[in-house]
Amino acid sequence: MSTKIEQVNLERQIHGMNRTYNGFELPPYQKPAYAYTSVQIDNGVAYVSGSVPKTGDVDLHPGKLGADVTLEQAQEAARLALMNSLASLDAAIGTLDAVRKVLKMTVFVASAPGFNLQPKVADAASELLRKVFGERGAHARSAVGVAELPRNSCVEIELTVAVAQKHFVEVDGRDAECGVRVSRF
Amino acid sequence: MSTKIEQVNLERQIHGMNRTYNGFELPPYQKPAYAYTSVQIDNGVAYVSGSVPKTGDVDLHPGKLGADVTLEQAQEAARLALMNSLASLDAAIGTLDAVRKVLKMTVFVASAPGFNLQPKVADAASELLRKVFGERGAHARSAVGVAELPRNSCVEIELTVAVAQKHFVEVDGRDAECGVRVSRF
Amino acid sequence: MSTKIEQVNLERQIHGMNRTYNGFELPPYQKPAYAYTSVQIDNGVAYVSGSVPKTGDVDLHPGKLGADVTLEQAQEAARLALMNSLASLDAAIGTLDAVRKVLKMTVFVASAPGFNLQPKVADAASELLRKVFGERGAHARSAVGVAELPRNSCVEIELTVAVAQKHFVEVDGRDAECGVRVSRF
Repeated sequence: MSTKIEQVNLERQIHGMNRTYNGFELPPYQKPAYAYTSVQIDNGVAYVSGSVPKTGDVDLHPGKLGADVTLEQAQEAARLALMNSLASLDAAIGTLDAVRKVLKMTVFVASAPGFNLQPKVADAASELLRKVFGERGAHARSAVGVAELPRNSCVEIELTVAVAQKHFVEVDGRDAECGVRVSRF
Repeated sequence: MSTKIEQVNLERQIHGMNRTYNGFELPPYQKPAYAYTSVQIDNGVAYVSGSVPKTGDVDLHPGKLGADVTLEQAQEAARLALMNSLASLDAAIGTLDAVRKVLKMTVFVASAPGFNLQPKVADAASELLRKVFGERGAHARSAVGVAELPRNSCVEIELTVAVAQKHFVEVDGRDAECGVRVSRF
Repeated sequence: MSTKIEQVNLERQIHGMNRTYNGFELPPYQKPAYAYTSVQIDNGVAYVSGSVPKTGDVDLHPGKLGADVTLEQAQEAARLALMNSLASLDAAIGTLDAVRKVLKMTVFVASAPGFNLQPKVADAASELLRKVFGERGAHARSAVGVAELPRNSCVEIELTVAVAQKHFVEVDGRDAECGVRVSRF
């Protein structure tokens, strides 16, 4: 049984619908490989699961900052992780036009001893958020250096986003019947 | 002076009330050993403090993944940490029936260099959440590998949960008089 | 072009307005050095960016717990990081009287191998929160030990706070015209 989001993605493929937003191409939605949901929405707030810089099963610049991965590589990875988050959000809410504003971004950077430029890695994602959403892309942020990340990723990005309370579909592991969220309006 | 939650727990002991939910036995509520509150609730969202896999003062499988603790041990620990979180939530809202849906789980895994299977540790808790709550247990998630955790715990779990806005009691460090939360409805 | 918050701070300097709250002196508001916003507010919840223990460009007790920094030094640093967070929040909402209650504090502690007293570091900030806000300062909390932090800080503190939905001004990178938040009431 396919989920609502798989149906939406299938329809998009069939009809060749645009998966760009404000000139930025969204990567394909990647269903979680584990027992969680990409996006949970309640009362106008969307919680987006931590995203890593992968395309399908291919990881971009795995390793640690200060050891295996350069700052420039990590910034490229941070942009991919962010776009994966936005692809999940887009799939969950149908269109990124429904983003009222970004609230919070947490950036976990895999850091070897002595690497303390986590904000420079995070800035690549922060600046891209501002380009994609303009004023709506402003956000609070925390950036920390962690010991290890899933898949040996160099960065993991987590978003909390304020969204319009209309026309939502739920994602991952729900069938179509229960997938439609009724707005309070 | 006892707090509201201590009174609730005492009443439960006296009356032998059921502390299972949907067939799962909840561990006893463990009051924080430090200067914070187990659960804060506002406007239908409950923020549950980070929980570690301990029973009283006994830690389950302390140490790091990739060094001292096996994946199977960490999964068992993750389930205990989750149940400790749910015991706190149950104490705060009176019944887990008041859970509308889980929003977000963050799983911090104490990780030795080279351990990158944080999602497999986290999945033990994610799958248990789904068993306890069914469809309401779906959740967004981040899993990261940290350097060290309190008490040398191998895992720490943090929950954000959407709850019904009725009949709440507050927990920890509040006396009974100010402990009742008035619903907006 | 100056932002609303810069104007507010300028006015405070000109008029010698009080920047203490409940007897506690707030440090000067420090604009983020990177591409994020100090505080984002939506629907009565304020997300405060991670704060580190710095005054201008001077870091207080950089290094790791269990190696370079003592517990007492880290506690002093945690109090400064918290006060920096409150200074940001004060700048964003105009007065800390608008804090309804603190919801969540996350404390990231830079930890050398074998340091597991993250809660003792965090308690310095938790206890100060209670002194500043009284009952409104109760909060859920997570404390974890991370590998590295920005600027080699020994601690980073992140707050989520429930605020009254009136009279907000937005901060950082917004000009005055778009800086006023209209309440839903």
